[in-house]
Amino acid sequence: MNIDNQLVVINTPKNNKFLAVVDLKKEFTTNEGNFKFSQIKNIPTLVKTSTGVNFNIYRPTYKEFVLLMKRGPQIIYPKDVAQIVLESNIHNSSKVLEIGSGSGALTLYLYTLLKNTGILYSLDSSKINQRRADKTISRYISTLSDENNDITFINEELINFDYKTLNQNIDAIISDVPEPWEFFTNNKIENSVIWVSYLPSMTQVMRMNDVLKEQQFQDIEIKEVILRDWVVDKKIVRPSNKLVSHTGFLISARYINH
Amino acid sequence: MNIDNQLVVINTPKNNKFLAVVDLKKEFTTNEGNFKFSQIKNIPTLVKTSTGVNFNIYRPTYKEFVLLMKRGPQIIYPKDVAQIVLESNIHNSSKVLEIGSGSGALTLYLYTLLKNTGILYSLDSSKINQRRADKTISRYISTLSDENNDITFINEELINFDYKTLNQNIDAIISDVPEPWEFFTNNKIENSVIWVSYLPSMTQVMRMNDVLKEQQFQDIEIKEVILRDWVVDKKIVRPSNKLVSHTGFLISARYINH
Amino acid sequence: MNIDNQLVVINTPKNNKFLAVVDLKKEFTTNEGNFKFSQIKNIPTLVKTSTGVNFNIYRPTYKEFVLLMKRGPQIIYPKDVAQIVLESNIHNSSKVLEIGSGSGALTLYLYTLLKNTGILYSLDSSKINQRRADKTISRYISTLSDENNDITFINEELINFDYKTLNQNIDAIISDVPEPWEFFTNNKIENSVIWVSYLPSMTQVMRMNDVLKEQQFQDIEIKEVILRDWVVDKKIVRPSNKLVSHTGFLISARYINH
Amino acid sequence: MNIDNQLVVINTPKNNKFLAVVDLKKEFTTNEGNFKFSQIKNIPTLVKTSTGVNFNIYRPTYKEFVLLMKRGPQIIYPKDVAQIVLESNIHNSSKVLEIGSGSGALTLYLYTLLKNTGILYSLDSSKINQRRADKTISRYISTLSDENNDITFINEELINFDYKTLNQNIDAIISDVPEPWEFFTNNKIENSVIWVSYLPSMTQVMRMNDVLKEQQFQDIEIKEVILRDWVVDKKIVRPSNKLVSHTGFLISARYINH
Repeated sequence: MNIDNQLVVINTPKNNKFLAVVDLKKEFTTNEGNFKFSQIKNIPTLVKTSTGVNFNIYRPTYKEFVLLMKRGPQIIYPKDVAQIVLESNIHNSSKVLEIGSGSGALTLYLYTLLKNTGILYSLDSSKINQRRADKTISRYISTLSDENNDITFINEELINFDYKTLNQNIDAIISDVPEPWEFFTNNKIENSVIWVSYLPSMTQVMRMNDVLKEQQFQDIEIKEVILRDWVVDKKIVRPSNKLVSHTGFLISARYINH
Repeated sequence: MNIDNQLVVINTPKNNKFLAVVDLKKEFTTNEGNFKFSQIKNIPTLVKTSTGVNFNIYRPTYKEFVLLMKRGPQIIYPKDVAQIVLESNIHNSSKVLEIGSGSGALTLYLYTLLKNTGILYSLDSSKINQRRADKTISRYISTLSDENNDITFINEELINFDYKTLNQNIDAIISDVPEPWEFFTNNKIENSVIWVSYLPSMTQVMRMNDVLKEQQFQDIEIKEVILRDWVVDKKIVRPSNKLVSHTGFLISARYINH
Repeated sequence: MNIDNQLVVINTPKNNKFLAVVDLKKEFTTNEGNFKFSQIKNIPTLVKTSTGVNFNIYRPTYKEFVLLMKRGPQIIYPKDVAQIVLESNIHNSSKVLEIGSGSGALTLYLYTLLKNTGILYSLDSSKINQRRADKTISRYISTLSDENNDITFINEELINFDYKTLNQNIDAIISDVPEPWEFFTNNKIENSVIWVSYLPSMTQVMRMNDVLKEQQFQDIEIKEVILRDWVVDKKIVRPSNKLVSHTGFLISARYINH
Repeated sequence: MNIDNQLVVINTPKNNKFLAVVDLKKEFTTNEGNFKFSQIKNIPTLVKTSTGVNFNIYRPTYKEFVLLMKRGPQIIYPKDVAQIVLESNIHNSSKVLEIGSGSGALTLYLYTLLKNTGILYSLDSSKINQRRADKTISRYISTLSDENNDITFINEELINFDYKTLNQNIDAIISDVPEPWEFFTNNKIENSVIWVSYLPSMTQVMRMNDVLKEQQFQDIEIKEVILRDWVVDKKIVRPSNKLVSHTGFLISARYINH
């Protein structure tokens, strides 16, 4: 196995976690000690540091990667990503249009579910966002065996986007942009499709709800996912004290073309 | 397109939804009117009933199918299924062992994500449950284009199950049984794997937590997913009054084999 | 102790609870057996029924009374009543104006905290509501020792109400009506006061928020109280499955007169 | 009005809030400017600072006081205090025993509801806690008109406490201590009473539940109060991002003496 360039988590005895890309010529330095990447012979592995303790080296899960990576645009939470996939009825041969590549966190999850077998378009008005998303995804791919990033990135303002230019009948349209209703300024949906938008504010949901009704979508549903972490120890069993109370609302709907 | 035998939702003007399997020789009867399945030429479509109204015919989404289908064993909710997939770090080429085929609701979701590209084993002590799960899945598959159900069902008591008999290195083990710790009575995990158990009671979580610690799992996390539905209408914007407050807790952990 | 006319809960061995007013000349009939009110010598007590089982007779708590009583207008929940009292900074010598006597559930709680020592006005446009509220309260008072209902009911449309006609400087104004902003059509607050409105829909909250800002209120806060019940039994420890997900939002604010 | 020694909130234009006791001989210093307490002629009032801005001076509400005051022992949240009062069926002539004076936050709320008309005992094993609680309450009383702190503090270990020494029939017993079941080591309840315990961990709830059953309490209920704050601005309507997810559970029960 080629270990150079692989994405890993380095977990210290004090349970500090670092994301790193293996560079066999370099050293990795922390407050808890240093080691040389060339000490890594396999992944996962334990490496002994200069201070004599063991660091745990392993590949990140998707959730771990997203929560540890540097954040560009406000990141979408894994809990919402999971629910979006469910609401949009995605399976591994779905054809999906994502509106808003953003940080790439959602794009990456979609990629891991669709790679090789489905189709994924990702639209963003910002070339910078898309480059970051692309880099994020490619980095993570190093943890999966020999995959190629087969996402089609589209760099365009949503309001100017022409849905008919896509070569495929899309099964699901997922948005993580502030004004997803701009899609409908120049487009009309004419194939059966599921729409899911992630929106932080109820005022956005109210507007999107009106637009989806106008556009004759059915089964409009609005929901929020609240994730509650628990602390369970022999004597202590309680919800953790802090909670991300709100990330965003999901509005989903279905268009049926008869 | 062959329409006979296809799984469809029949949606009436009063928004009553029925799951049905098309039988071109039969009629479908409701309080709101009847129609002959032979009227269906495409899916989706509108069919005119004996009472002159239109019924909307379309393929169910996974969520719709699960929520409409007849329930055998207590069914796992879509919100939990989505979070389980995320926590278990499943992508479309993962190798997964499911403990507890149950109603097949979770098995089916895993199947839609893994079909053709991943590997799915599903263990259950009850042959009846497995037959039902298999039937559930096969019925739903009729809505996807020409797929074969490639799940390996294993019919055995968990306590007697020998993990080493699996031909594959498993990436994720997911359980929806009351006593998942029985797995460890005769097995020891020796490969890197993610474990996720769905458990209704905190007392079960407390016990599973102890077992996962004993078995030297790391990153043990306990959480619950709360889904809150909203009613949004021009004048009314509020959470819906009723909520499924509790379905189950998720406990997840990672074993790393060095 | 005079037992006639007292308000009691009758609790059967199957844990069915009935609210009743003792009438020493009558009998009380249930599916689980009958008894004569004249069997009651003290409250609380056990009475033996015709079928040989014991019924438990005792005075209702406020919460029990509200949850068991017949419901006229949509009732406000105890959880919200408790939080309203806290937000409105009520103590036992506060002077309070309640807008919307409604079913009397909130009025009654305020009464139990203010009786004899504070002042309570209760405004409603409906004479019927007020009579019901008055009756509700008087019935419950029979469970407290020799109290008189010293609430001042005001029967008027909110939009016509003249705040200056109150003889007292009010400390807190609490509303449970759909359009509490009507108060400000003809009134301006000129004394230091706390305002708390209970409103089912976020659209109402949005409007009230605007009005409170216009009226130069400070410390505007919006919140909702979610009460989660738990089932705890030796083997089962979990939230109860059903939850009243939503009753209403609270918007509170303070006006300071310099 | 005598202003010296009064408890006030000082609210700056940047919405920083400070609790202070007026000392007419002193100055109050903040990053946003200074003023002399002797400038205060009334409460509430605006005072002009050395930097030419106005500070808003007013009496704190109970909630504001508790949230701004210095915290000794882990403080109980206002949301829980409000629900405890409701569950314990307290009205203004109730006779209450509080187990655990703690920081005095709960004691103070009970005091404001019971002063002059009800009876309040507050037990704590720590003299230091009780002195702090007493001081907290007396400070806050300066905001109410001429009240005397009529709480009976009892300084004793719960396990040694003799319930029969109280001169009154108690209506409600409220605890905020880690091991409330110690009460029953040497005591047996023989009068009709409501018990409410506030407990952070589900393991404590499980034990208390067992003890209340053994002691033949009825209507045992377990719940938690979740308070969700909202941000409402013209364009933004959403729950606030952070939430105190967990403070404690409430277990309540009723003993009926026949």
